[in-house]
Amino acid sequence: MTWFANPPSRGICHWGMRLGCAGLLAIATSVSAADHAKDVDPFIGVDWDGEVFLGATVPFGMVKLGPDVRTFDGKLIKSGYHSTGEVVGFSHLHLSGGAGKYGNILVAPVTGALQPADIHSPRSDEEASVGYYSTYLSRYRTRAELTASRRAGMQRYTFTDAGDAHVTVDIQHAINTGTGPEDQRFLGGDVKVVSSHEIEGVGRYIGGWNEGGEYRVYFYLATDTPAAGAQTWQGRRLGKTPHARIDADQDLGASLDYRVEAGQAIQVKVGISFISVARARRNAEQEIPGWNFAAAHQAAVAQWNRALSKIEIHGANEVERRKFYTALYHTMLTPSDHTGENPKWSSDQPYYDDFQAIWDIFRSNGPLLALIAPDRQRDMVRSLIDTYRHADYMPDARVGNDNGRTQGGSNADVLVADAYVKGLTGIDYATGLQAMLKDAQVPPADPRKHGRGGLDTYNTLGYIAQPTERAGSRTVEYAYDDFTIAELACGLGHAQEAKRYIGQAGNWANLWDASLEQEGVKGFLRPRNADGSWGAPYLVKRGTWPDFFYEGDLWTYSLYAPQDVRRLIDMAGGNEAFVKRLDVFFDRSHFDITNEPGFLIPDLYLWAGRPDRTADRIIDHLEKFFLDTRAGIPGNDDSGAMSSWYAFQSMGFYPNAGQDVYLIGTPSFPQVDMQLGNGKTFSIVAENFRPDRLNRYVQSATLNGKPLDTAWFRHGQIADGGTLKLVMGSAPSRWGTLTPPPSLSDPGFALCGHYGGPR
Amino acid sequence: MTWFANPPSRGICHWGMRLGCAGLLAIATSVSAADHAKDVDPFIGVDWDGEVFLGATVPFGMVKLGPDVRTFDGKLIKSGYHSTGEVVGFSHLHLSGGAGKYGNILVAPVTGALQPADIHSPRSDEEASVGYYSTYLSRYRTRAELTASRRAGMQRYTFTDAGDAHVTVDIQHAINTGTGPEDQRFLGGDVKVVSSHEIEGVGRYIGGWNEGGEYRVYFYLATDTPAAGAQTWQGRRLGKTPHARIDADQDLGASLDYRVEAGQAIQVKVGISFISVARARRNAEQEIPGWNFAAAHQAAVAQWNRALSKIEIHGANEVERRKFYTALYHTMLTPSDHTGENPKWSSDQPYYDDFQAIWDIFRSNGPLLALIAPDRQRDMVRSLIDTYRHADYMPDARVGNDNGRTQGGSNADVLVADAYVKGLTGIDYATGLQAMLKDAQVPPADPRKHGRGGLDTYNTLGYIAQPTERAGSRTVEYAYDDFTIAELACGLGHAQEAKRYIGQAGNWANLWDASLEQEGVKGFLRPRNADGSWGAPYLVKRGTWPDFFYEGDLWTYSLYAPQDVRRLIDMAGGNEAFVKRLDVFFDRSHFDITNEPGFLIPDLYLWAGRPDRTADRIIDHLEKFFLDTRAGIPGNDDSGAMSSWYAFQSMGFYPNAGQDVYLIGTPSFPQVDMQLGNGKTFSIVAENFRPDRLNRYVQSATLNGKPLDTAWFRHGQIADGGTLKLVMGSAPSRWGTLTPPPSLSDPGFALCGHYGGPR
Repeated sequence: MTWFANPPSRGICHWGMRLGCAGLLAIATSVSAADHAKDVDPFIGVDWDGEVFLGATVPFGMVKLGPDVRTFDGKLIKSGYHSTGEVVGFSHLHLSGGAGKYGNILVAPVTGALQPADIHSPRSDEEASVGYYSTYLSRYRTRAELTASRRAGMQRYTFTDAGDAHVTVDIQHAINTGTGPEDQRFLGGDVKVVSSHEIEGVGRYIGGWNEGGEYRVYFYLATDTPAAGAQTWQGRRLGKTPHARIDADQDLGASLDYRVEAGQAIQVKVGISFISVARARRNAEQEIPGWNFAAAHQAAVAQWNRALSKIEIHGANEVERRKFYTALYHTMLTPSDHTGENPKWSSDQPYYDDFQAIWDIFRSNGPLLALIAPDRQRDMVRSLIDTYRHADYMPDARVGNDNGRTQGGSNADVLVADAYVKGLTGIDYATGLQAMLKDAQVPPADPRKHGRGGLDTYNTLGYIAQPTERAGSRTVEYAYDDFTIAELACGLGHAQEAKRYIGQAGNWANLWDASLEQEGVKGFLRPRNADGSWGAPYLVKRGTWPDFFYEGDLWTYSLYAPQDVRRLIDMAGGNEAFVKRLDVFFDRSHFDITNEPGFLIPDLYLWAGRPDRTADRIIDHLEKFFLDTRAGIPGNDDSGAMSSWYAFQSMGFYPNAGQDVYLIGTPSFPQVDMQLGNGKTFSIVAENFRPDRLNRYVQSATLNGKPLDTAWFRHGQIADGGTLKLVMGSAPSRWGTLTPPPSLSDPGFALCGHYGGPR
Repeated sequence: MTWFANPPSRGICHWGMRLGCAGLLAIATSVSAADHAKDVDPFIGVDWDGEVFLGATVPFGMVKLGPDVRTFDGKLIKSGYHSTGEVVGFSHLHLSGGAGKYGNILVAPVTGALQPADIHSPRSDEEASVGYYSTYLSRYRTRAELTASRRAGMQRYTFTDAGDAHVTVDIQHAINTGTGPEDQRFLGGDVKVVSSHEIEGVGRYIGGWNEGGEYRVYFYLATDTPAAGAQTWQGRRLGKTPHARIDADQDLGASLDYRVEAGQAIQVKVGISFISVARARRNAEQEIPGWNFAAAHQAAVAQWNRALSKIEIHGANEVERRKFYTALYHTMLTPSDHTGENPKWSSDQPYYDDFQAIWDIFRSNGPLLALIAPDRQRDMVRSLIDTYRHADYMPDARVGNDNGRTQGGSNADVLVADAYVKGLTGIDYATGLQAMLKDAQVPPADPRKHGRGGLDTYNTLGYIAQPTERAGSRTVEYAYDDFTIAELACGLGHAQEAKRYIGQAGNWANLWDASLEQEGVKGFLRPRNADGSWGAPYLVKRGTWPDFFYEGDLWTYSLYAPQDVRRLIDMAGGNEAFVKRLDVFFDRSHFDITNEPGFLIPDLYLWAGRPDRTADRIIDHLEKFFLDTRAGIPGNDDSGAMSSWYAFQSMGFYPNAGQDVYLIGTPSFPQVDMQLGNGKTFSIVAENFRPDRLNRYVQSATLNGKPLDTAWFRHGQIADGGTLKLVMGSAPSRWGTLTPPPSLSDPGFALCGHYGGPR
């Protein structure tokens, strides 16, 4: 044990702090935000297919420290957590929903003899709240508690019995490992015990769901208690050498070894960096100075309370509050703020990672943040544009510092346009437009990585011809992406581009076969050959890679034209036929709430003058599919996409992402107040609201005191705050039936000139 | 107005009573059962596809008096009720789940001018509890309250304003009317105003989901207040003639007309009969003597409390109690006790109707009642056998006094055998066996009505050959029905029949194509021709009439062999392959909790030695799909079938219907006590139970103090009460893995000789 140096003193607030402890506590307690942290139940949606992250993190935190679980058959859960199975330890990086990446730097307590290949334990007495997770590991008779800051995690292990104990770190461990194209692989790493209480190192990994290139995770681990000894392991060799290194997919790790007393607690702090060990150390020491677990936890809670207090719902019961604020919490887990941690390029722009995927989150997460956290959304959009500058294209998905993989269109375009039409300032929209034009014009070398696949036929024929994969979903999404390009081009004064792309915005209709009939409904999208002839209809219920549609079926994608629902209705036979079509769609279970491409469909009734049906469908789905249980999210939460749909629709409105238009549904609460980030508040008041939802139909409305006869309004009408008052009743009314939301085909449709961009 | 006579005095307890009012009140208040009526929320499951009856009724009541609703577009809801839309009145006969029949004798209050073709109103302030429903009809500014006895309903209308008011009855009205084969049609009727406070008559109807023949509903309506006048209508003619009659599908009804004071209440009583007006009157007068609405309501509540108190769950929170007792309530809405109301034949046997369908309820409703209400289940089985005596065959479904239509096998067989192996006495099992043998041997004239379709090839080839409809699902169900015939034949000493049918019990395997592969799983059922050759595989996701499978797909029906899971496992490649197959089945969403044919599948893991997986799957599905909301039932409740699955599985065990075996799952409560109807109590105690369901795996068990090493037990072991104690833990254990539940292929399988029949 001669190679130890600098044993730390134990206790609160010692070395390496730049902020004093007293200062930290002052920050943590000076917050006056409402305490909605207590309304969050992090267990909601962790099971079934929800795959929500469970563990300790801060809003948009880079570090998401949580338990990784293996089934009782010994297989690791690919998203990290599940309610059943055994805990193998606590790793520092996770996604939330849409699993398949990370799970790096696994730290675990062990008691008794150390067997690195056999670290796992049943658990009991799990507790979780925002910024906190705790469980009792019964095999080791040890309680583990976790909290986190943005780039560091803190753990506290309390050992029940006196005896041998170990604080271990496993570098090889990752989740979703294997040999398939979507699996992660460990490439090797380095681990060094640098003192009686410090370990540092790096792991190198590749692959995962996004099929990304190698990423490196550096760490610095410190404990508050000097160890009696230490060990490292590489491959099958466990020994006292302080440094281990491996360049293959083999075991690699280290342990600090203790003789503990009964009831003794040992605290562990781990800083993470994508750049260097030094930065990892700095992250730990700056963000969690000292050894005050309660203070670190309280700081995380305070961050969450600030973030969650942007929305105040009134008149909700405990269950409704829990569902709502947990949903809001889910929307703030990812993307992750990696600013200062970009190993790929240097710039003065913010850097966000963990867009998994923009295809999921552009529809409602982005517009939600643009409303209640515009600075955050601004920084994300800046990061997307900076990624274009330095990494070829804006991503459709990006994780582990690499773009990949594409799902539908190039929907980062929608996020840029959405920021523009919502008036977000501080964004280089000129470069944003360049990035969007590159999407639209330059075929990527690898269309699974980023950019638009099938661009050749799309740009020559106006549709993606067979046999390119995802030709149907890509065509309709590209057409909408093109619409958003036209919006931004128009706003920035590029009339030529605006004209070209407003033309392409109608391309979705090029795959419409008016004669194709299903279940009494006529007119659907259909595969089409390069010579203009039709291919065989694609009737599979749920398409998936590499089919004609991506994660959505014929019915769903044949309703995708958010830029021109009016034309869609006309092609589908007019208002009455369209309402009937939507009724068949919902009544015969073609609507798939478990996936994103149909998110807007309940609101399409508004264009046909039937706000009552929109209200019915929304309430049906909110009631049926969003629960306050571990199985409480209908499909994969996909970075909070499901949760953001729930949050918007339960507030009573929903965005048409990329446009300055909000669609009015039916509120689940008598009043909602939203802080818009500019000191202004937007309130929705539902008069005659009843918790039994019988008074679900709007009878009349005012916006900022003036009568509002439409079931929609523009962002500009609420950008400076205001109040939308809805008078509710038990029967449908004439309200909202006369002037539908805007469509490109409307006579006099104005592309620019509404709120239309930052002032 | 000269044709009025005998105006009644108003108030409580006057004419026509055989029971005095005091006596009635004494009955109502002498009940000492636990008050679980308050735990029931009748709104659970009324929406989405649940189609649960909403309104006033008693357990298994013939009269189910509830609101019929039309959408805001004017279309009647085919099950009667929905949360949105307008109330058209309150009709007296309904099913619960599996809609499409009844909705007869619609009574409604009207204020202002009477327009018979335009009676409907928005509603507000709906309230419902067991035996009670109330709403405010805003168009008529009238509060309506409903309660019911077995064959009569009572209503109280409270008029807000002074002015003209009417108590109307609509004879033409029925739900699910139209011209399709599953629609109801009104054939005509007769209505007569017989005094200033009495109307009587009859309606004749035909059709509906069961494609049944004509049924007649007689009624006698009385109010507590003499009217100032009356009218009738037939077709478009409204007039003061006291008698109206029509023999076609045209409007027909009557009204008692009042001048009411503000706040005045008028009470209405309606007796229903399938035999005569006189009986309808007797039913009203005997069952609801006098005019004490509260007493009638209280009597209904008392009946529910007696019925619901058969099961006591401990340690449940308010939501769990609400879900559980509402589920129990759902299982006691149908079949309906029509004893004394059989228009088709006279006998001394009980008469139950509204089996819609046995295919739904044989799996878990029947076995549940056999445990907690054996006298009720006995009477239902007696009624089935009596139907065979007088109406050709036992029904697979029966509504409106007519058999029809068949869905899968002849599963009344299973109910008879289930009663036998559970030891129910008072049943003529010899005739029961005859009825079962007729099912098995005599092809019916109309196989959609009852009996077994495809019997020719089934009995010669051992499978139903192509192209007979439902050949797959029928073959496997017939094979199981044959197994239950063998059980009963064996128990009654008919060795010859027992031998024949135990042979046929293996017929399901004749459609097994060992080479058919789907998603990496091998061995599935497949259509087969009469010459023994295979037809094209039937791969449609959800089969429905007239496909190879009925309301279930390839995956589901290829797991249907409740009599011989051991052989199924062997054919599927052994325990390990079978567990993998089940995992694929659940993980890839082949399990359809919204329909009945897969109800047993979560328990199939037990035969492969994996009680832990059974526990996981049950908890997953209980948590995800059973809610305490109006959308709270995963599929159509189908006469409480869904609810009975929930009730059993949440208590911690599940029946293998038709066998004397119960399968142990994982309890949702720390203790459940069931009263077995013989003064004995069976308790399930879960030690170390945790509400968060982490301790979901049984570690060890005792039954009546003796160690129980199997994850199953026999009815005989609990028939005299006892206690099953399960010690729960957070990790799977060896418990229950060694001796799987019985299978026909087990060496030494004993068909008779367990509890094996009534003592």
